[in-house]
Amino acid sequence: MSVRSRRGPRFADEITSKDFAELKKDKLLAILPVGSLEEHGEHLPLGTDAMQAEEVVRRIASRFESIVLPPLRYGECRTARGFPGTVSLSFETVQSFSFDVISELARNGVFNVLVLTGHAGSGHMAALRLGAQRAVEQNQKLKVMVLSDYDIAYDLRGKEFSENDGHGGDIETSRILNIRPKLVKRSRPKGSWDIPEFMVLPHPEKYIPAGIAGDTSKASPEKGKRIDDYVVDRLCKLISKNFGIRRV
Amino acid sequence: MSVRSRRGPRFADEITSKDFAELKKDKLLAILPVGSLEEHGEHLPLGTDAMQAEEVVRRIASRFESIVLPPLRYGECRTARGFPGTVSLSFETVQSFSFDVISELARNGVFNVLVLTGHAGSGHMAALRLGAQRAVEQNQKLKVMVLSDYDIAYDLRGKEFSENDGHGGDIETSRILNIRPKLVKRSRPKGSWDIPEFMVLPHPEKYIPAGIAGDTSKASPEKGKRIDDYVVDRLCKLISKNFGIRRV
Amino acid sequence: MSVRSRRGPRFADEITSKDFAELKKDKLLAILPVGSLEEHGEHLPLGTDAMQAEEVVRRIASRFESIVLPPLRYGECRTARGFPGTVSLSFETVQSFSFDVISELARNGVFNVLVLTGHAGSGHMAALRLGAQRAVEQNQKLKVMVLSDYDIAYDLRGKEFSENDGHGGDIETSRILNIRPKLVKRSRPKGSWDIPEFMVLPHPEKYIPAGIAGDTSKASPEKGKRIDDYVVDRLCKLISKNFGIRRV
Amino acid sequence: MSVRSRRGPRFADEITSKDFAELKKDKLLAILPVGSLEEHGEHLPLGTDAMQAEEVVRRIASRFESIVLPPLRYGECRTARGFPGTVSLSFETVQSFSFDVISELARNGVFNVLVLTGHAGSGHMAALRLGAQRAVEQNQKLKVMVLSDYDIAYDLRGKEFSENDGHGGDIETSRILNIRPKLVKRSRPKGSWDIPEFMVLPHPEKYIPAGIAGDTSKASPEKGKRIDDYVVDRLCKLISKNFGIRRV
Amino acid sequence: MSVRSRRGPRFADEITSKDFAELKKDKLLAILPVGSLEEHGEHLPLGTDAMQAEEVVRRIASRFESIVLPPLRYGECRTARGFPGTVSLSFETVQSFSFDVISELARNGVFNVLVLTGHAGSGHMAALRLGAQRAVEQNQKLKVMVLSDYDIAYDLRGKEFSENDGHGGDIETSRILNIRPKLVKRSRPKGSWDIPEFMVLPHPEKYIPAGIAGDTSKASPEKGKRIDDYVVDRLCKLISKNFGIRRV
Amino acid sequence: MSVRSRRGPRFADEITSKDFAELKKDKLLAILPVGSLEEHGEHLPLGTDAMQAEEVVRRIASRFESIVLPPLRYGECRTARGFPGTVSLSFETVQSFSFDVISELARNGVFNVLVLTGHAGSGHMAALRLGAQRAVEQNQKLKVMVLSDYDIAYDLRGKEFSENDGHGGDIETSRILNIRPKLVKRSRPKGSWDIPEFMVLPHPEKYIPAGIAGDTSKASPEKGKRIDDYVVDRLCKLISKNFGIRRV
Repeated sequence: MSVRSRRGPRFADEITSKDFAELKKDKLLAILPVGSLEEHGEHLPLGTDAMQAEEVVRRIASRFESIVLPPLRYGECRTARGFPGTVSLSFETVQSFSFDVISELARNGVFNVLVLTGHAGSGHMAALRLGAQRAVEQNQKLKVMVLSDYDIAYDLRGKEFSENDGHGGDIETSRILNIRPKLVKRSRPKGSWDIPEFMVLPHPEKYIPAGIAGDTSKASPEKGKRIDDYVVDRLCKLISKNFGIRRV
Repeated sequence: MSVRSRRGPRFADEITSKDFAELKKDKLLAILPVGSLEEHGEHLPLGTDAMQAEEVVRRIASRFESIVLPPLRYGECRTARGFPGTVSLSFETVQSFSFDVISELARNGVFNVLVLTGHAGSGHMAALRLGAQRAVEQNQKLKVMVLSDYDIAYDLRGKEFSENDGHGGDIETSRILNIRPKLVKRSRPKGSWDIPEFMVLPHPEKYIPAGIAGDTSKASPEKGKRIDDYVVDRLCKLISKNFGIRRV
Repeated sequence: MSVRSRRGPRFADEITSKDFAELKKDKLLAILPVGSLEEHGEHLPLGTDAMQAEEVVRRIASRFESIVLPPLRYGECRTARGFPGTVSLSFETVQSFSFDVISELARNGVFNVLVLTGHAGSGHMAALRLGAQRAVEQNQKLKVMVLSDYDIAYDLRGKEFSENDGHGGDIETSRILNIRPKLVKRSRPKGSWDIPEFMVLPHPEKYIPAGIAGDTSKASPEKGKRIDDYVVDRLCKLISKNFGIRRV
Repeated sequence: MSVRSRRGPRFADEITSKDFAELKKDKLLAILPVGSLEEHGEHLPLGTDAMQAEEVVRRIASRFESIVLPPLRYGECRTARGFPGTVSLSFETVQSFSFDVISELARNGVFNVLVLTGHAGSGHMAALRLGAQRAVEQNQKLKVMVLSDYDIAYDLRGKEFSENDGHGGDIETSRILNIRPKLVKRSRPKGSWDIPEFMVLPHPEKYIPAGIAGDTSKASPEKGKRIDDYVVDRLCKLISKNFGIRRV
Repeated sequence: MSVRSRRGPRFADEITSKDFAELKKDKLLAILPVGSLEEHGEHLPLGTDAMQAEEVVRRIASRFESIVLPPLRYGECRTARGFPGTVSLSFETVQSFSFDVISELARNGVFNVLVLTGHAGSGHMAALRLGAQRAVEQNQKLKVMVLSDYDIAYDLRGKEFSENDGHGGDIETSRILNIRPKLVKRSRPKGSWDIPEFMVLPHPEKYIPAGIAGDTSKASPEKGKRIDDYVVDRLCKLISKNFGIRRV
Repeated sequence: MSVRSRRGPRFADEITSKDFAELKKDKLLAILPVGSLEEHGEHLPLGTDAMQAEEVVRRIASRFESIVLPPLRYGECRTARGFPGTVSLSFETVQSFSFDVISELARNGVFNVLVLTGHAGSGHMAALRLGAQRAVEQNQKLKVMVLSDYDIAYDLRGKEFSENDGHGGDIETSRILNIRPKLVKRSRPKGSWDIPEFMVLPHPEKYIPAGIAGDTSKASPEKGKRIDDYVVDRLCKLISKNFGIRRV
C-alpha cells in the first residue's frame, strides 16, 4: 500500500486483509454510511437516505486517511413505516449492528469511527448511539462520532430553505436531483408534517398525507450541490476538530 | 410502472413508494444479497463474498418478476475472524436483520423471499435461517429460500475443481477475477484447511495459515464465468420450482 | 368517587382498586413523572430532575381528569454518569419500565398517557419513547405523550435565559430554588458544556468540569416560578390539543 | 457533611454530588425501598406495599450511617394482577432495576445495600434477588440484603394474628391505619385465599374473591404500631449482624 | 394403545408419535422431573436431587393417566455452586426450558402439567414458575403445578426430623439410601447452614463448611422409604385436588 | 478414587463432589449426550435420538478418562415439529444450555468437552455450537467438540445404506432395533423426504408424509450393531486426535 497514489476513497471491501494490516491505524478514520429503505414521497426513491450519506462519505473520505466501510442501507423507521415500501429494522437490530461494527473495528486496532446516517429518525439515531456507547464502554480507546448529515443540512433552514422543510422536502429533493437525477420523478409534491408534538401514536403517517414535509416545487440540482458542499465542508471541520486529525 | 420496459434488475432503493405500491405482489420475488467483510487470502478483497452474491443476484433478478433489496455486506464470521480486517456481526445481529427484513416484506404484502449469501459460514447460515424461521412462524404466507451460492458452486468440486477447494481458493478466485479483476492481487497463494473436524476452538485461524483453502495458481476469469453461469442457471431452476414462478 | 369534591391531584397509589374501577376511563389522563438520580453541580441535589417533573405534574394534574402514577426517580444517565452519586439505569431498564407501565394502563382501560420526565438525556428520552412505541404497537387505542419539561423550558433560552444555559444552570437552579429552596447550597457555580459535538466518548464528564452548563449567579426563586408557570401553561395547552380533553 | 447534626434519614436525592463524594463509604448502608401498585382489597390503597416499606425505611435509616435511595413504588404482581388498578412490572424489569441500582452503588464505592420491599410476591422477590445476585457476581465486594418486611411481620402470625392472615388482611390493614389512616376506607372486609397450592393458573384472582386474605374487622392503628415496632427492631438487629455495622 | 394393560409409568420418549396422538388428552397429566448437578456433601452423589424427583415421579405416574417427560437433571444452583462438581444452569436457561416444554405440551393438546423438582433453590423454583407463568399467559387452558418434593418432605421437619435438617441432611441421605444405596459413601457428615439470613453474597458456600445442613448419622433406608411414601401419598392427593383427575 | 478399578462409564451424577475434586482434570474428557423428543415415524419412539447418543456415549466413555454428564433429552426441532408428540426447545434454550454446561465445566477446571447429539437438525446443531463458541470466547483453555453421531453414521450412506436414508429410516431403525428392540413397532414404513431444497416453510412436515426418510423394511439389529461399531470406532479416533488424549 505504501507507494500507491490514491485519489478516491478507500473502500474496506475492496482491499485485502494484508492491505488492512498495513494501514497505519493511529490516525485512521473508519467511516460507516447508514441509510434507510423508506418512503420519501411520490417523487423520491426509497433509498434516498443512503444515497445522500454515501455521497457525502465519498466526498469526505478522500480528504482524510480513512477507510469506508460497506454501507447499511436500512434503518429504524417509525413515522413513515406505514407507507408502502418502507422496510424498517428494529431498534435492537440497528443498535447491535452499530455495536458489532464499532467493536470489531476496535478489535482490529481502529479507534476513530464516524457513523454518518442519511436517515435521522430519533429512534434510529438513538440506536446507533447506544450501540456506539456500549462499544466505547468496552473499549475506552474508541472515539465515535454519530450524526446525520441532516444535523448539518438543517442549519440551512430558515436561511435558503423553509423552516418547515423536512422529510422528502426541498432540501432532500434538491440533493437527490444533484446526485441521482434519473431517480427523481417529475411530480413536485408539497406536504406538511402535522404529527401532534411529542406524541407516540399507532399511525403517525396519517398526519403527513403527502408523505413529505415541505414544498419541492423549487428544488434544483444546483441547490442540492450547494447543500452537499455545505455539509461536506462543515463535516470536514468537525472531523478535524473532534478526532484531531488533519486532511490529507 | 405499467408501461415501463425494464431490462436490468429492479432495485428496491431506486423506486418510489408509489412504484412499490403498484407492484403485483403475488408472483413477485424479493431478493436479499448478503455477504461478509472477511479476510480472503492475500490476493482477494475483504468484500469477496458480497461481490459474488450481488453479481449472481444481478443476473437472476432480471429473469423473474423481482425486486432486489439493498445488500447486507457483513456476516457472522468465525473461522477467519482472527485475521486482520474481518469485521464480523454477532449471530443475533444477523438473525434479527434477517427476521426484520423478511417480516417487513410480509407486512408489505411480499411473501416470496430469496436470501442469497456469498458467505457460507455455518453460524452465519444458521442465523439467516433462524431469522427466516421466526418470520415464517409469524406470517404463514411466507415462503423463504435461504442459501449460499456456494451451496451450488461446490457441486463443481471433484469435477472441474479440487475436492479441497474452499475459502479464497480456486473457485472463489476465479469468480472475483471474472467480476472484479482489478481487485485481485497478483499473488496466487495455495493453502490448506486443517481445522480439527467438529472442533470449536478459540483460534481456528491458526489452522489455515495462508487464510485460504485451495490452490489458486490456475484460477482464471474464464473459469469464474463458467462457475457463475452454472450457479445462475441452477439457481433459476430452483427458484422456478420452489416458488412456482416463471421466468419473464 | 362520584360525589367527591377533589382539589389536589389524584395519586394512583392513594386510591383503592374499587376507586380505580369506578373512574371514567375514556377521558382520563394517566401521568407518569420520571426523573433521575444524577449529579447536578455542587449546589443542586441529585434528585433535581424528579423534583421538577413532580412539581409540574402536581400542578397540571388537578386541571384535567387525571391520575398521577408513582414517579420513577431514576433515569438513564450518560454525560454526568462519571460524577459521584449518579445512579443510572440502563437503556433497557428505562425502556421496559416505560413499556410495562403503559401496557398495564392499557390493560386497565386507560389509553391516554403522559410521560413527563425532568431528565432529558437523549438516550433516556429514546428509551421512554421506545417503551411507549412498543406498547402502542400492541394496543392501538393508546395515545402516549412523552416529553421532558425541558422540551418546553428551553423555549426560554435566548430570551430571559442564556442560549448556553443547560444542565444545572440558571433555569434549573431557579426552579429548584422555587420548589425545594432548602436543598440548594449557597454556592452559585458557573460552568460550560464543551463536549465535542456528536461524539460518543468514554468520559464525557471531563468536558464539563463544573458539572453544569450555565451561570447560576442570577438564579432566583422568582425566575423559577415564572419558568414553571410557563411550562405548566404550555403543557396544559399541549395536553388539551393532543388528547382532545378539556380542563376540569 | 462532617459537622452536620442529622436527625432524620439522609435521602440520596436530597444531597449533592459533592455531599455524596464526602460520605464515608466503608460502613455506609444504602437502602432501597420497593413496593407495588396493586389491589389491596376494597379498603386499602393501591400503594399499600410501598407505604409500609418506606415507613420502615424511614425509621431504620436514622439508626445507621445510611443513605436512602428513591423508592421504586412498583413491583411484579401475579396473584392480584387481575384486579382493577394493578400496574405490574415484568420480572425482567424488576430484575434489571435491582441489578442497575446495586451495580451503580458499587461503582460509586457503596458496597452495603439493603433492598426492603413491602410487596412479597415470590416472583417479585426472586427478581430483586436475581438482580442482586448478578451484581454481586460482577463486584464481589458487594453485600446485599434482600427481604420483604413481611418476612419479619409474618413472625407474628399464629401469635397476635391469625395463621391465615395475608394480603390486605389484619396485619396490613393495621399498619396502614397507623401510618396513612386517611387512606383507609371504612369497610373492614374479610376474605380467604383459596388458590390451589403450587398451581400456576391463568386467573389466580378468582380464588381470592374479596381480594384479601384475613379478617380486617379488628385491625387498629395500635396493632399497626406494634407490628412496625417489631419489624423495625428485628430488622435493625439483622442489619447489625449481617453487615457488621453499629447503630449511630 | 387402547387395549394396553400398562403397569409402570408411561415414558414419553418410549412411545411413538402415533401412540402420542392416540392418547386421550383431556385428563392426561404430563409430568416433568427436574433435578440438579450439585454438591451434596462428601457422601451423596451430585445427581441426588434428580434421583429423588425421578423416584417420586415413577411412583406417582402409574397412579394417574399420565405421561412422564424426559428429566432435566440440571438446575440453577447458587448456594452450593462454589463446591467442586456443581454444574449450574442460568436462571434464564431454566426459565426458558420450563416455558418451552410446557408450551409445546399445550401445542400438543396436553394442558395438565406437573413440574416436580428435587432441587429446591429459590431462584431455581422461581425460574421454573416464571417459565410456567409465561406459558399459561399464552395458553389459558393450561394448568401447571410446580413444586419441589421438599415442599412436602419438609413437613416432616420438627417431627421425625430436625428443624434444621436441609441440603444433604438426614432426610436427603435417608432417601438416597433407600433408592440408590450403592451411591452413598460410608461417611455420615454433620453440618450446619449458617448463611446470614436474607443475604446475597459472593460466596455463600463459605457458610456451609461441610456442604450440608443436618446430622446424617442416623439416616437409614427405612426412614427414606417412609419419607418417600409420605411425599407420594401427599402429592397424589394434591394432584387429584388441583387437576380434578382421579387415580387409575 | 485413585485405586478404583472402573469398568463402565463414570457418570457425573453418580459421584460425589469430593470424587469430582479428586479427578485429574488435564486429560479428562467431559461428555454431554443430547437428543430430542421428536416424531420418528410410526415405528420408532419419540426418544430415538437420545437413545442412540447415550448408547454411543456409554461405549466410548470407558475408553477414555472421562466423565459422562446427565443427558439433555430434548432438542430444537423444526422439520418434524408439526407431528404429534414433538416437544421442541427454542434455539435460545439449546444455545444457553450448551453455554451454561460448558462454561460451568471450565469453571470446574474441565476444558475438554465432547457434545454428542443424536438429533442432527441444522438449527439444533448451530445452537449447540453457538453455545460452545461463546463459552470458548470466554475461556480460551476450552476445546469443545460438537457433533451428531449422524455426522459419522451417514458415511455409510451410498455404501451399505441408501443415499436417501435419513430421519427414521433404515439406519436409525436398525440402531434402535439393536439397542432398544422392544420399543420398535412391527410396522416397517417407507417414506421420502421431499422438502423443497433450501426452503424455510411454515409446514415442512407436509413434505414428509410418512414422517420418515428411507425404506425400513430391511432394518435389522445386526445392521444397527455394525453402524454403532463404526460410529464408536471412528469417534474414538477423532477424540484421540482432536484432544490429544489416549485411550485407557
